[in-house]
Amino acid sequence: MTKTTNALVCRACGKREDMDAPIWKCSCGGLLDLDFNPVFDKEAIAARKPDMWRYREALPVGEGHEVSFGEGFTPLLPLGFGGREVLVKQEQLFPSGSFKDRGASVLVSKARELGVAAVVEDSSGNAGASVAAYCARAGIACDIYVPESTAAGKLAQIQWCGARLVKTPGSREDTARAVLRAAETTFYASHCYNPYFFHGTKTWAFEVAEQLGWEAPDTCVLPAGNGTLLLGASIGFRELLAAGVIDRLPKLVAVQSTACAPLAASFAKGTDEMVPFDATETLAEGIAIAEPVRGPQILDAVRETGGAFLTVSEREIVAALRLVCARGHYIEPTSAAAVAGAIRYAGSAPKDERIVSVFTGHGLKTTEKMLALLEK
Amino acid sequence: MTKTTNALVCRACGKREDMDAPIWKCSCGGLLDLDFNPVFDKEAIAARKPDMWRYREALPVGEGHEVSFGEGFTPLLPLGFGGREVLVKQEQLFPSGSFKDRGASVLVSKARELGVAAVVEDSSGNAGASVAAYCARAGIACDIYVPESTAAGKLAQIQWCGARLVKTPGSREDTARAVLRAAETTFYASHCYNPYFFHGTKTWAFEVAEQLGWEAPDTCVLPAGNGTLLLGASIGFRELLAAGVIDRLPKLVAVQSTACAPLAASFAKGTDEMVPFDATETLAEGIAIAEPVRGPQILDAVRETGGAFLTVSEREIVAALRLVCARGHYIEPTSAAAVAGAIRYAGSAPKDERIVSVFTGHGLKTTEKMLALLEK
Repeated sequence: MTKTTNALVCRACGKREDMDAPIWKCSCGGLLDLDFNPVFDKEAIAARKPDMWRYREALPVGEGHEVSFGEGFTPLLPLGFGGREVLVKQEQLFPSGSFKDRGASVLVSKARELGVAAVVEDSSGNAGASVAAYCARAGIACDIYVPESTAAGKLAQIQWCGARLVKTPGSREDTARAVLRAAETTFYASHCYNPYFFHGTKTWAFEVAEQLGWEAPDTCVLPAGNGTLLLGASIGFRELLAAGVIDRLPKLVAVQSTACAPLAASFAKGTDEMVPFDATETLAEGIAIAEPVRGPQILDAVRETGGAFLTVSEREIVAALRLVCARGHYIEPTSAAAVAGAIRYAGSAPKDERIVSVFTGHGLKTTEKMLALLEK
Repeated sequence: MTKTTNALVCRACGKREDMDAPIWKCSCGGLLDLDFNPVFDKEAIAARKPDMWRYREALPVGEGHEVSFGEGFTPLLPLGFGGREVLVKQEQLFPSGSFKDRGASVLVSKARELGVAAVVEDSSGNAGASVAAYCARAGIACDIYVPESTAAGKLAQIQWCGARLVKTPGSREDTARAVLRAAETTFYASHCYNPYFFHGTKTWAFEVAEQLGWEAPDTCVLPAGNGTLLLGASIGFRELLAAGVIDRLPKLVAVQSTACAPLAASFAKGTDEMVPFDATETLAEGIAIAEPVRGPQILDAVRETGGAFLTVSEREIVAALRLVCARGHYIEPTSAAAVAGAIRYAGSAPKDERIVSVFTGHGLKTTEKMLALLEK
């Protein structure tokens, strides 16, 4: 096998395909990664608009195909508690209200470049709302599969952007199975399978590094459900390291809800097999993924950096939500899981450790839930 | 009367007060403006973070008192329709979901500088949510008066930020009267009365000018209810002109809902008196202001630039909302009123006119309304 750069590579069989092949998995059924050589010109980047497309030469999309709302370059703000401080990336400020816009912007750009006319996607809400918005901007037809329990705010958003909403009975996993059938005939704009999505979320790492003066933080405390952000961050920091922009990888600490923590269980057992997990309901609906498609890859990404998994209880999630909102940050409960993890992690980390975490989604996404929590 | 710079000035009696006086109206009862000499150092500004505080020397707050979430410098994106193009400032992307954060950031910063411990504010929702968030950040206690009909999304947001919510029966005007009683004893963080609020919203003009290469657009099409943004824009462009940064004022075109258009009626009659207006319900709740406190000032600001008033029907508001959302921008119905006005204005403007308008608030603010509109 000749090593060509910029190719889709199967994680299972190693087969390489042209990066412009309109596929989302290998013919063997394996998951695809993208082997991509980015370029970082710090001076050129600094002179550009403050959005995620300022890293143009590090994004696997042909010039002129960008589908963008000028998104990204979100503020990185200190959050203090108990004498400690964590820097929190304000990803709730994306156009659709969550960090998923990073992935959708790059993936839908690629789809447009490839001449794709229609896509399907499944989501507990945020990825769907995001893909719907970017497809609307690109003029690409779009079916979004969601569990019936999805928050009203996200449902309204998806439909207003002109996507067809397919409400699916049963669990999040039932929704995933339904979309896989549709994806047999239609381009799957998946935030789990499609490698281009992660080459959007990787810009999180680029921005963090640039905002820290082109340095890696010591530790990133990130939510892990499907690993959309965590794997993106892993790719991004590795690309920065390979390009010599940063000189080490930050430690990745992954946070799951105790109610749905299959990755943490596998990590604890030291295995790559997903430990069967009897999930219960959690406020952190956005990371309640019982069968993460890229589970072994997420475990690898964390292990590679000497990282760890933390699980946070419902009580800790609510406490973190109250702490953050009382400071004027309005975020959705899922976001509070990562914050709860960051609070716990920072409490026992060395004082001089530079820790970065994230607000993943806006509080306005889940008004019913926020109102119900107020009653308690 | 000696002219001192940087003073609060009464619009009624002309009395000047120290700009650090903790007052929101003159002892004669008149409305206050702020006479303020800003400084613009374009080079220094360009080197700073992309937020509204990059215009530091143009903001009337002492160094070190900033209450900020790193907000502002929102994207300015082209919106095309019928062969025309309008540049639209994406103000729905502020932390609280509306442009009101510009005003709240400066006003609450000033309140903190003055040592204010508690404030009251009234709002149809967005200004309240914004003031609540910034007070939370500043550690200032806060009572927000809202009409009972306020959207659930905004109510949840206000309460989560720790503000005390005072739901007031009756009309928006009844809410305004209730807060005026409270403001007799508590600092009034008003987006209508308090001049510091407008010295926050003026940064909209600074950003537009900077994003256009330090030039004024030809025309700004802006919503007008209490004139929070329009008066801010007027102040901002006048300050830029006085400082020699731009060489002319843009024309200000104000948009009201046909259902509640007292300013347009007064403008048409050529009077400064508010024409009594029999308002009916409108989707554009955020600009449904039957008795705008600074009405004559808004009329002056528009007249001074050779501008105009437009009124848009409910049908036009819905059509604009559908057009915008179908492009992937998720905005609240109030925002669509200004867009409807911009569409109408652009249709008959010279082709080479550079027109700027605004999305004022996020669609996630008004989920019930957005869902109800989908049914129609």
